[in-house]
Amino acid sequence: MKKNRKVIITCAVTGAMHTPTMSDALPFTPEDIAQQSVDAAEAGASIIHLHARNPETGEPTGDPKVYEQFLPAINERTDAVINLTTGGSPTMTVEERLWAAMEVKPEMCSLNMGSLNFAMFPLADRYKSWKYSWEEPYVRNSDDFIFRNTFRDIEKIMNIMGEHGTKFEHECYDVGHLYNLAYFADRGLIKPPFFIQTIFGIMGGIGADEDNLMFMRKTADKLFGDDYHWSVLAAGKNQMPFSTHAALMGGNVRVGLEDSLFIGRGELATSNAQQVSKIKRILSEFSLEIATPEEARQILNLKGQDKVSF
Amino acid sequence: MKKNRKVIITCAVTGAMHTPTMSDALPFTPEDIAQQSVDAAEAGASIIHLHARNPETGEPTGDPKVYEQFLPAINERTDAVINLTTGGSPTMTVEERLWAAMEVKPEMCSLNMGSLNFAMFPLADRYKSWKYSWEEPYVRNSDDFIFRNTFRDIEKIMNIMGEHGTKFEHECYDVGHLYNLAYFADRGLIKPPFFIQTIFGIMGGIGADEDNLMFMRKTADKLFGDDYHWSVLAAGKNQMPFSTHAALMGGNVRVGLEDSLFIGRGELATSNAQQVSKIKRILSEFSLEIATPEEARQILNLKGQDKVSF
Amino acid sequence: MKKNRKVIITCAVTGAMHTPTMSDALPFTPEDIAQQSVDAAEAGASIIHLHARNPETGEPTGDPKVYEQFLPAINERTDAVINLTTGGSPTMTVEERLWAAMEVKPEMCSLNMGSLNFAMFPLADRYKSWKYSWEEPYVRNSDDFIFRNTFRDIEKIMNIMGEHGTKFEHECYDVGHLYNLAYFADRGLIKPPFFIQTIFGIMGGIGADEDNLMFMRKTADKLFGDDYHWSVLAAGKNQMPFSTHAALMGGNVRVGLEDSLFIGRGELATSNAQQVSKIKRILSEFSLEIATPEEARQILNLKGQDKVSF
Amino acid sequence: MKKNRKVIITCAVTGAMHTPTMSDALPFTPEDIAQQSVDAAEAGASIIHLHARNPETGEPTGDPKVYEQFLPAINERTDAVINLTTGGSPTMTVEERLWAAMEVKPEMCSLNMGSLNFAMFPLADRYKSWKYSWEEPYVRNSDDFIFRNTFRDIEKIMNIMGEHGTKFEHECYDVGHLYNLAYFADRGLIKPPFFIQTIFGIMGGIGADEDNLMFMRKTADKLFGDDYHWSVLAAGKNQMPFSTHAALMGGNVRVGLEDSLFIGRGELATSNAQQVSKIKRILSEFSLEIATPEEARQILNLKGQDKVSF
Ligand SMILES: [Zn+2]
Ligand SMILES: [Zn+2]
Ligand SMILES: [Zn+2]
Ligand SMILES: [Zn+2]
Repeated sequence: MKKNRKVIITCAVTGAMHTPTMSDALPFTPEDIAQQSVDAAEAGASIIHLHARNPETGEPTGDPKVYEQFLPAINERTDAVINLTTGGSPTMTVEERLWAAMEVKPEMCSLNMGSLNFAMFPLADRYKSWKYSWEEPYVRNSDDFIFRNTFRDIEKIMNIMGEHGTKFEHECYDVGHLYNLAYFADRGLIKPPFFIQTIFGIMGGIGADEDNLMFMRKTADKLFGDDYHWSVLAAGKNQMPFSTHAALMGGNVRVGLEDSLFIGRGELATSNAQQVSKIKRILSEFSLEIATPEEARQILNLKGQDKVSF
Repeated sequence: MKKNRKVIITCAVTGAMHTPTMSDALPFTPEDIAQQSVDAAEAGASIIHLHARNPETGEPTGDPKVYEQFLPAINERTDAVINLTTGGSPTMTVEERLWAAMEVKPEMCSLNMGSLNFAMFPLADRYKSWKYSWEEPYVRNSDDFIFRNTFRDIEKIMNIMGEHGTKFEHECYDVGHLYNLAYFADRGLIKPPFFIQTIFGIMGGIGADEDNLMFMRKTADKLFGDDYHWSVLAAGKNQMPFSTHAALMGGNVRVGLEDSLFIGRGELATSNAQQVSKIKRILSEFSLEIATPEEARQILNLKGQDKVSF
Repeated sequence: MKKNRKVIITCAVTGAMHTPTMSDALPFTPEDIAQQSVDAAEAGASIIHLHARNPETGEPTGDPKVYEQFLPAINERTDAVINLTTGGSPTMTVEERLWAAMEVKPEMCSLNMGSLNFAMFPLADRYKSWKYSWEEPYVRNSDDFIFRNTFRDIEKIMNIMGEHGTKFEHECYDVGHLYNLAYFADRGLIKPPFFIQTIFGIMGGIGADEDNLMFMRKTADKLFGDDYHWSVLAAGKNQMPFSTHAALMGGNVRVGLEDSLFIGRGELATSNAQQVSKIKRILSEFSLEIATPEEARQILNLKGQDKVSF
Repeated sequence: MKKNRKVIITCAVTGAMHTPTMSDALPFTPEDIAQQSVDAAEAGASIIHLHARNPETGEPTGDPKVYEQFLPAINERTDAVINLTTGGSPTMTVEERLWAAMEVKPEMCSLNMGSLNFAMFPLADRYKSWKYSWEEPYVRNSDDFIFRNTFRDIEKIMNIMGEHGTKFEHECYDVGHLYNLAYFADRGLIKPPFFIQTIFGIMGGIGADEDNLMFMRKTADKLFGDDYHWSVLAAGKNQMPFSTHAALMGGNVRVGLEDSLFIGRGELATSNAQQVSKIKRILSEFSLEIATPEEARQILNLKGQDKVSF
């Protein structure tokens, strides 16, 4: 792992896993997504990771027209790096998932490094009623979801987005995904420094135990040496503890309502910015400094805010 | 992990990953599958793990009629436990994969504990010509394979085969698969002792490094305590070293041409029995004893050879 | 490991490793030791770990008469658990080290679980002048120190202090020390729950890397199952990060000027209480609650403040 | 770790831990030590690690005159590397321990990388009578032994033996010892490649669990990168399993009656050569080749058999 002098905070503002019923704070209108993104950047996030949602119902969408309703607004008001999903939602095809990123040519996009079951169905029983009709079947049917990312899919995304100079947040949900990444690195399809997002606690992926955090890190060290920057996200209640562990070990962190709706034990967060502020406050207890967007661009070797298509 | 006094050797006779071009020793006619199974049992294997193949071309098939051409012959000539795949091949639907096991009601069947990419495409360039026309596209297109095993699929297999009293070889290709297994164990859908086959070196799954061997074992210990028997298979050249590591740590082993075509560095095995003999000889150097089929039945709590439908 | 609902904070007020020259805040007069102990307890420490020092020069001493100058004062003003060293300083004999604890019969005493080199000589070059003449040779000659704790010594301390109903803080500086503890636990010389203090970053012991933190924890889990409470101290700059890691994993923490003289990067702490307040503030970010002295007594099964001889 | 093409087998012929009562095969006369050394070399050992014993009673001795009774005889009859202990026995002073090595100026000598308890007292109750009067107290009093190797001692041995061009077998009994070695490596007192002997299962040191084997290896990788060759010895019944694990992971092995008196479960070895033959036979099952003495000299960068003083 390449040790940073400064910690990069990514904020994943809305994602595709949570649904409007689960938290009133989860943004889905373009206005709310833009506002929460700007607030998160002002609170200290140097990278904003974004999905789009249907402005009326909050249902995940890959439609570039929806992205266009909030991306320019964010870009005008902050200098944070914009990082677009290519994971979309488990129900989209790979083509739908790539659509917006191909149009928008962002500085970064996510790239999921393998196929896996990706489930949240046990959550469904917590809710008696749902705000929108798509939500309950979406959550319940996740027992049959496969989050599809074959070797061919990954290679395709690397080629298409690589041509646009977009760099990747390599999302790794299990140990094998790091080996998949090593396969592509060895073939030279991607160039270091790699930005590896190790993900813990998704049902279907590696669990949120500290042993696993350490093991993913050690495996990445073995496979990539100093050629990567390490970032960590953990789902739900493990978000802040895992971010803290990672930062104390020289890594970077991801927070945001995509990954957890909470701010403390049993307490829903009121905004993305609240989570960013909290992790920043914790890091300051350890004399850890936060990277600015410009510093994040340098660390990750990004093409620059002026090279995107929005 | 439950420590055995004796080591259970599983032999996976033909599988669905290798193709006839890769080794003349790979059995695919019913006669050859039966003969190699019997020989492997006589050499020391107490469990025979079986797939079926088209008798003319060696292409993987799920057709129970093909299984019927070799299963009775094996059963008559050995008392080894017969363990049927429910993984089939990456190109079959889950229904096709279950078909034979539902008919045959074996003492054991495999149960793959999660979805993952499952690829062998880099092997294709080693072969200039192919014996059968299905082989090359089968191998090359594996860059787009997902080995499908959703939570819903797994639950279905547990329910259907559980009703037949069939026990599972839980195939775990990565750390998350152990968590998936824990999810079902916690719900009580399966009962200990679990027979966990940890698998190393499949492209798409966890790599064949000894760190990983140890970590899968420690993770299983954490999740299942003494409620499981541990078995190990590693693909290709790591087959014998990983089997040896596992047995020295109190685990069980799987060998066979499904997992590796080799017997030594660069040397193709001439039969499944040759691999069984080799691991048996190695284990005897460490005063480790081999379980008989009857001992394996007791250790794994199987229903007995007289309760199957063939 | 036994998971606590609440975190026990131990404060090690003065120790024997640091010398007066290194920090003006390091207490060595009986009045200062008493005052800082009381302040640390009020800030949230439920256990106060104590050594004595020569009231004039700050040199470590095992003399019970010196302990008597501050122990009653602390006992009157707080209900914190008093934990006496039996490690003394590297230059004392085992008899000198035990002397005070035998007289005082505290609720807890430390018990070092093996012999090791224990060195701080590289620190000496940081100081141009020294407040007291004993300091420089004490620090420089530590290149030839062995911290003596043979199996015979340990057994003796277990027997003598065990008769007084004193429970142990088992100080483990390396992996082998956990095995030594297991040897005595297996013989039944000590009874669970054990309070295991794993120590990181002493020159001669295991280093302060997070891998080691995790490995000591996993080793203790393997050897003691749920029969122990885990506590962590790391020397110097790793004090707060390691305490935080441990608490996030269900462990307890030790802070105090014995272990680190610092409060932030390059900034000396002004008191023991300042370190206690800091770790308490960090823990509260994660909704972790602090054990009161009474709760600590219950968790660790201590004899009670009224059963000591001072 | 530097991966060898070939495996170096060290044979530790007699040591100082076992006593004549424990096995008739343990050599202690100069003739027997010489003969078993030569036989071990012929069986495949490229390094012979030697201690001396009183020719009449088998009691460990550091007397160079005793070494002179067998060293030349070995040197004449084999080209194996001679590696002299500087650990001597737990009852010798550091001066006594160094005495012979200083005279003899061997190609290699052992260098123990830290102080620790080193005990075998629980063995004493296995024997009802003893061949020699020194044996029983020697074994029983090991509950109070410290194997002394302070930083100052280690530096002294590095300086003295380094001047003679002697290279070290760095004996590491616990994780901290690797950190101690790193301290000296960082100061430049020793030059790579380092030959690190990690030792498992000595009472007082790290236990003989495979987790520990892996962790010592990973720690050495972290601290020394490719600057070291790894060798493994485990005491007693773990000798062959741990040697096998190590060799399968690219390491080297040490066998011999110093470390284990056994050849199989409950069966005493009849000679050192028998153990060498056994590990060689096991390694050949995995297509692993054995280094000749000349190859070992090249791998470890030794001064040559003609540069010693005997
Ligand atoms: Zn996302
Ligand atoms: Zn199979
Ligand atoms: Zn202390
Ligand atoms: Zn020796």
